[in-house]
Amino acid sequence: MILARPLEGLPEVRPGDDLGALIARALPEPLRGDEVVVVAHKVVSKAEGRLRHLDEVIPRRRARELAEAHGKDPRLVQVILEESRALLRAARGVLICETHHGFVCANAGVDASNLRGEGAVLTLPVDPDASARALRARLGELAGARPGVIITDSFGRAWRVGQCDVAIGAAGLAPLDDWRGRVDATGRTLHATSIAVADQLAAVADLARTKDAWQPVVIVSGAARHLTEDDGPGAAALLRARADDLFR
Amino acid sequence: MILARPLEGLPEVRPGDDLGALIARALPEPLRGDEVVVVAHKVVSKAEGRLRHLDEVIPRRRARELAEAHGKDPRLVQVILEESRALLRAARGVLICETHHGFVCANAGVDASNLRGEGAVLTLPVDPDASARALRARLGELAGARPGVIITDSFGRAWRVGQCDVAIGAAGLAPLDDWRGRVDATGRTLHATSIAVADQLAAVADLARTKDAWQPVVIVSGAARHLTEDDGPGAAALLRARADDLFR
Repeated sequence: MILARPLEGLPEVRPGDDLGALIARALPEPLRGDEVVVVAHKVVSKAEGRLRHLDEVIPRRRARELAEAHGKDPRLVQVILEESRALLRAARGVLICETHHGFVCANAGVDASNLRGEGAVLTLPVDPDASARALRARLGELAGARPGVIITDSFGRAWRVGQCDVAIGAAGLAPLDDWRGRVDATGRTLHATSIAVADQLAAVADLARTKDAWQPVVIVSGAARHLTEDDGPGAAALLRARADDLFR
Repeated sequence: MILARPLEGLPEVRPGDDLGALIARALPEPLRGDEVVVVAHKVVSKAEGRLRHLDEVIPRRRARELAEAHGKDPRLVQVILEESRALLRAARGVLICETHHGFVCANAGVDASNLRGEGAVLTLPVDPDASARALRARLGELAGARPGVIITDSFGRAWRVGQCDVAIGAAGLAPLDDWRGRVDATGRTLHATSIAVADQLAAVADLARTKDAWQPVVIVSGAARHLTEDDGPGAAALLRARADDLFR
């Protein structure tokens, strides 16, 4: 049984804020060690000051050309290129990038929409697994127990419409549940399956949120069997190795 | 808040079984109309008799060649090709296919692992949206209310390791939650987002399951705002149009 509850009452997060303390203060009851705290990267990026003011961005030639071809702001494209180690596709106004972390996603995860009034865009955390580990440790100090922590973003998919939230950072849980070769209840060998547990936890958290409310943090219980004492390999374990990539 | 509970006590499903009646009998309490019944396609396919006995399959030349090149059973490859309208990639023992429905997935969704003892493999339902509509109507007759219904399979992802459950059939819910252009609680225009709600519901159901138990059906509550009076467009709405496919 899985239960996912959005955390109410988290204040607006600002650069330099102690996000763990803000979450701990908003909790209606102490965390249990068998819960997972799922956090939209937006508040992590904000707390870490991962804002780029477009006024201060000077687009270089490639950014200007791409912006012209795809009807985008050249300064925004410059930020996207700086966040990327490869540009996989540019078509119909969408730049599909591989970020420096290795995530393949639209616009290298640069979020321009919520911040237009301020003339700034938000980029992904520099090291989301490290952010997850730090948040886990901080919650362990302040909130009663060290939960699992997942940091999420919404990614599109190559062959399916719409976005699903996925884990871009994780600590204190096994991101993959590997059933390959195990047998099921009736003794039959299971379908070759390695389940992206961290991504499915990200998805349930997004589902639990009311999108037009301010609910960047969701507490998930019922996933205790995936939690680990150590921080574990993080969401980096969910990246497909380049040698195994059939669709680049 | 999202709550997902696996249904206990569903019997083994056999070809010709009335799956709706089996689910209705196993329910601990009547369904509410604001719940979603998420069903692993395996039991839908079984009830619909979507088994192929490999003894009766004659592999043709292309199947024999692919099987030889990728170390697979030529009869299994023949079934996979018959379930496909295109083969996108064949590499390292994996056939990435586009099924006749338009799903892009490994082995055209043909599940060979759980059925080896019987010498048979399981294929996807012919029309999973129709299966979902029929199951929704049947549950409406027998189980107290017409819930939302989702039929799922586990798909890999192009750039991420591990599988996530996705919706291959749906009825009675909006598969996509389109927030593009809407404003958030603070009046700012939201990130260009269309959320694949049906896929996220599939993911939470898989998370709620104990993989080595027999729990192909999961009841999800808390998603009432996505439910619809009519059956809606089904999971077909989640297929990316070929013209928009950047990664074929």
